[in-house]
Amino acid sequence: MKNCIVAQSGGPTVAINASVAGVLSGNEKTHIFDTVYGGINGIEGILHHNIVNLSEKIAEDPDFIRKLSVTPAMYLGSCRFKMPKATDNAGLYEELFSYLEELDIDTFFYVGGNDSMDTVLQMSRYAAEHDLPVKVLGIPKTIDNDLVITDHTPGFGSCAKYAATTLLEVAHDAYIYPMKTITVVELMGRDAGWITAASALARTSYSAAPHLIYLPERPFSKEQCIADVKKCLETTDDVILAVSEGIRDKDGNYISATGTELDKFGHVKLAGAGNVVGDFLKEAFALKVRVIELNVLQRAAAHIASAQDQKESMELGEHAVTLACQGVTGHMVTFLRKSDSPYTYEISSHDISDIANAVKEVPDAYINEAGNDVTDAFLAYARPLIQGTPELTYKDGLPEYAFL
Amino acid sequence: MKNCIVAQSGGPTVAINASVAGVLSGNEKTHIFDTVYGGINGIEGILHHNIVNLSEKIAEDPDFIRKLSVTPAMYLGSCRFKMPKATDNAGLYEELFSYLEELDIDTFFYVGGNDSMDTVLQMSRYAAEHDLPVKVLGIPKTIDNDLVITDHTPGFGSCAKYAATTLLEVAHDAYIYPMKTITVVELMGRDAGWITAASALARTSYSAAPHLIYLPERPFSKEQCIADVKKCLETTDDVILAVSEGIRDKDGNYISATGTELDKFGHVKLAGAGNVVGDFLKEAFALKVRVIELNVLQRAAAHIASAQDQKESMELGEHAVTLACQGVTGHMVTFLRKSDSPYTYEISSHDISDIANAVKEVPDAYINEAGNDVTDAFLAYARPLIQGTPELTYKDGLPEYAFL
Repeated sequence: MKNCIVAQSGGPTVAINASVAGVLSGNEKTHIFDTVYGGINGIEGILHHNIVNLSEKIAEDPDFIRKLSVTPAMYLGSCRFKMPKATDNAGLYEELFSYLEELDIDTFFYVGGNDSMDTVLQMSRYAAEHDLPVKVLGIPKTIDNDLVITDHTPGFGSCAKYAATTLLEVAHDAYIYPMKTITVVELMGRDAGWITAASALARTSYSAAPHLIYLPERPFSKEQCIADVKKCLETTDDVILAVSEGIRDKDGNYISATGTELDKFGHVKLAGAGNVVGDFLKEAFALKVRVIELNVLQRAAAHIASAQDQKESMELGEHAVTLACQGVTGHMVTFLRKSDSPYTYEISSHDISDIANAVKEVPDAYINEAGNDVTDAFLAYARPLIQGTPELTYKDGLPEYAFL
Repeated sequence: MKNCIVAQSGGPTVAINASVAGVLSGNEKTHIFDTVYGGINGIEGILHHNIVNLSEKIAEDPDFIRKLSVTPAMYLGSCRFKMPKATDNAGLYEELFSYLEELDIDTFFYVGGNDSMDTVLQMSRYAAEHDLPVKVLGIPKTIDNDLVITDHTPGFGSCAKYAATTLLEVAHDAYIYPMKTITVVELMGRDAGWITAASALARTSYSAAPHLIYLPERPFSKEQCIADVKKCLETTDDVILAVSEGIRDKDGNYISATGTELDKFGHVKLAGAGNVVGDFLKEAFALKVRVIELNVLQRAAAHIASAQDQKESMELGEHAVTLACQGVTGHMVTFLRKSDSPYTYEISSHDISDIANAVKEVPDAYINEAGNDVTDAFLAYARPLIQGTPELTYKDGLPEYAFL
């Protein structure tokens, strides 16, 4: 008997289930594992022996893998459990690996973002140090696109497509009245501005919105923002701003009004950068100002997912199975871009110790000199990632998703 | 020469352009008008002689009518101009009709909601009283679904589809953590709860969200809401509430914290009912509470429009042309439902004086006894309206829309 287990962790994306689907389809092709288990609620659930037999799901429903690949959020549930270091809690690791041995687990696949890759690092180190036969592989996912080494992360393309599509629709909505207006759209991205930058993909031959883009990678100045808007209003009636939730002033203080509460990982909880910007623009200009917060739909709107993103996410899952065949452990699967246009890439993998706990910000080459827009190089980078719409089936007018 | 002019007014929907497309396709079939003009920014723009030749657009782009029919917001722009009574400003009417005569206008089609239908009423009365040869016809549109006589209004079905689809996706997002949570989703609807009610269409075999629905048609009680949530938490981990922006207490005061500002029509401007509910639930339960405001995407998200809605909206535009052929004036085109399942309807029209300035609330038969949910009869009414997804073309990963 040789089995594997796959689990998901961190925040949702609309492509994270595609990686689980990829592990399943990878195993359908290679049959190297007798059973593919799913860990419910990530590593935390596995520690509580909370698992499901995914191989049985395929047997029950021949359409399961496809439906799973287009389903938003985590089919297997998530956790925000911070894995302690083995030196701090050896008992936890003994317990965990003894349970994996009980299940005849050959490989543990963990699909997640930055914090989850730290779990992959800790577990693979522990296994190596204790000569345990369990391989541990990471599959990236995060709408934030902030993992290093990989060209991009699954989930980002769909989030970018949502940002661009809805920004264009917000622009259509804003353009209808014969009056000057200001619209502030707040997008997700605590430490890196990738999602907010992607709103620039909304631009068409007739609409230049968003006219201004503010990322956490550049210090935000209220005075400069007012000057930028003033200049835009000279040539356009409706100025639309895309601001990241994580914008900070020159001293590193969050613009958000409520940026004091901390989450479990010690990150500052944010809300309201858009409202703060909207408020001072209302004061500066005697104009109608609207603030739109693009809420959780950014990471959950599977109905407007990028087909390219979901396809790539599935490919990563399949490649992780191939790596397991080859005996690789302590790696994360990655994208290597070969060219922007035509868009070509290779799938590879990289030592997790170079990836865990590092953050990839939007590089200088992707931000304009004034710090209020992105460059053409960014557009060339991001545009291939939002191509295609998912082939969804609908029932009673609703998309059909998988649910455990 | 016999021409017509069509204009749009009020708030956007993703089906309002389909009615303009319907006027154009109706004329393509009948050729009763030599030229179809579009009034830019509604009646206000027409008063400023701001018009466009739509017949030329068809000549320029053979795909124009289709693309227009799937484009969100107002292709021709909108206005919030309150037409004065002719007795208060006869000069304005003289000026307007003299301009229409100059353009050889036989029929004026006005696509809009409640306030726009008042304009149709005033203009058709003036024309009749002054023996002017101009016919005036109303084509309904409003996401609010609150016009009387017609079974439903174009724009509502798409808004309902957006509400249901995103509510389901929000539910997938909420279900991932092994902890109890409360999510409050605020939906549009100032005086009538149709949109909030439509969120019930999000329910599937595996998800009962929204578990509670609060409409403006029933007095809202904080205490009752807390009791309702408490009861739900006994059987479900993640309670999702759908609340209308227009919910009021038993004395008629808006629950929204900021419901004091008035718009041009004397309506109270609303924002924040969801936040108010979220705040007291956070206080009542020691749980994670999220508040999601489904912002302007409710009326602008053409990428997830109801194909049925856009098709019907186009049919109304075509029928309005037929009515003009028959010499009808002072009417609004309407839907008469024949049956829910299979869904069948007829298109008719009705005297505008019975329609303008009246509001259709969600009837008692569609609200449950406890006042915290809708009935099966409502679901049977609403479900046919959200069927089908629009056939969009995409360019660079974005939907292709029409723009003037």
